[in-house]
Amino acid sequence: MRYYGDYIARLIERFGSLPGIGGKSAQRLAFHVIAMPVENARALASAILDARENVRYCSVCCNLTDDDICGVCGDARRDAETIMVVEDPRDMAAYERTNEYSGLYHVLHGAISPMNGVGPDDLKIKELLKRVNDGVNEVIIATNPNVEGEATAMYIGKLMKPLGVKTTRIAHGVPIGGDIEYVDEVTLAKALLWRREI
Amino acid sequence: MRYYGDYIARLIERFGSLPGIGGKSAQRLAFHVIAMPVENARALASAILDARENVRYCSVCCNLTDDDICGVCGDARRDAETIMVVEDPRDMAAYERTNEYSGLYHVLHGAISPMNGVGPDDLKIKELLKRVNDGVNEVIIATNPNVEGEATAMYIGKLMKPLGVKTTRIAHGVPIGGDIEYVDEVTLAKALLWRREI
Repeated sequence: MRYYGDYIARLIERFGSLPGIGGKSAQRLAFHVIAMPVENARALASAILDARENVRYCSVCCNLTDDDICGVCGDARRDAETIMVVEDPRDMAAYERTNEYSGLYHVLHGAISPMNGVGPDDLKIKELLKRVNDGVNEVIIATNPNVEGEATAMYIGKLMKPLGVKTTRIAHGVPIGGDIEYVDEVTLAKALLWRREI
Repeated sequence: MRYYGDYIARLIERFGSLPGIGGKSAQRLAFHVIAMPVENARALASAILDARENVRYCSVCCNLTDDDICGVCGDARRDAETIMVVEDPRDMAAYERTNEYSGLYHVLHGAISPMNGVGPDDLKIKELLKRVNDGVNEVIIATNPNVEGEATAMYIGKLMKPLGVKTTRIAHGVPIGGDIEYVDEVTLAKALLWRREI
């Protein structure tokens, strides 16, 4: 990269270390930054710093927030008796986009994965237990439908049992708009197993 | 995005305005930044500012550089009598990676495109003329093999004619490692037209 000089090389390297950005994209982004109005480059740099330095976990649900309590937990119109457990704030955002859920969330920040050295203590499970002990009607487990997500769902399910709280898991099945031909066998088998009368 | 708070929303928006980064990638990058060590976030922000504020055009070839003269133009071992004309510093980088070219470059920063309102005066053509007038052996035109690049090549070719400098265009043909079946007809026709004896 020395034909461009150090500043560009460093910027390409920094962009290239971000997830999903390969060498070519990093180069493209770096050239875009150089050609940007200087105010835009400053705004990008300060957006990075502001977000990194000011964002923290919601003291209720562990979602990311600028404040002590996130927008969802602070919304009095929501059903505080129902908690949906998700792995990640992005999963929460995905459910928010459906406009079909009006309860609260609990963000674990990961899933149990012995392979990656992630155990229950690395997740926000203690915080969930505290909320459930304070009294809720239902805990909906919406971890990902993969090995780690299922293991996490099982683990939380077992913890909930003695507390007597209703605990549910989101349904598995063929996705709407999908093509049965292209759906994997495990999903097809689950969709058959959990068929409903119409 | 209000469920995450303003800082993240702003960062997602900034990332999303970069080329080739859609909504999902922007979100992913923003969450990555939030989870980064704070030094890394600072280094990314300052790499952006440093590059934007310190990078300028090489006073010889118009490549991007931190100094008055870029690394290629400043390298005495290179053949200063040959100039390869490219549209973009990335094209120059692509040729540098071949290790097959030891001359200098001239970066136009674009191609003639009346559709996009880019005329010859918007490119670094005056700077090229000055260099050619100062005496060179050969000008190799390596603009892109598309409408704009060909138009630019033709235009520069015409300018070079009265100066008596040897002017060449990089070859068109089937790409090495490609599959003839998938090569477009225009390229196939050019490859036939410019066939060489073996």
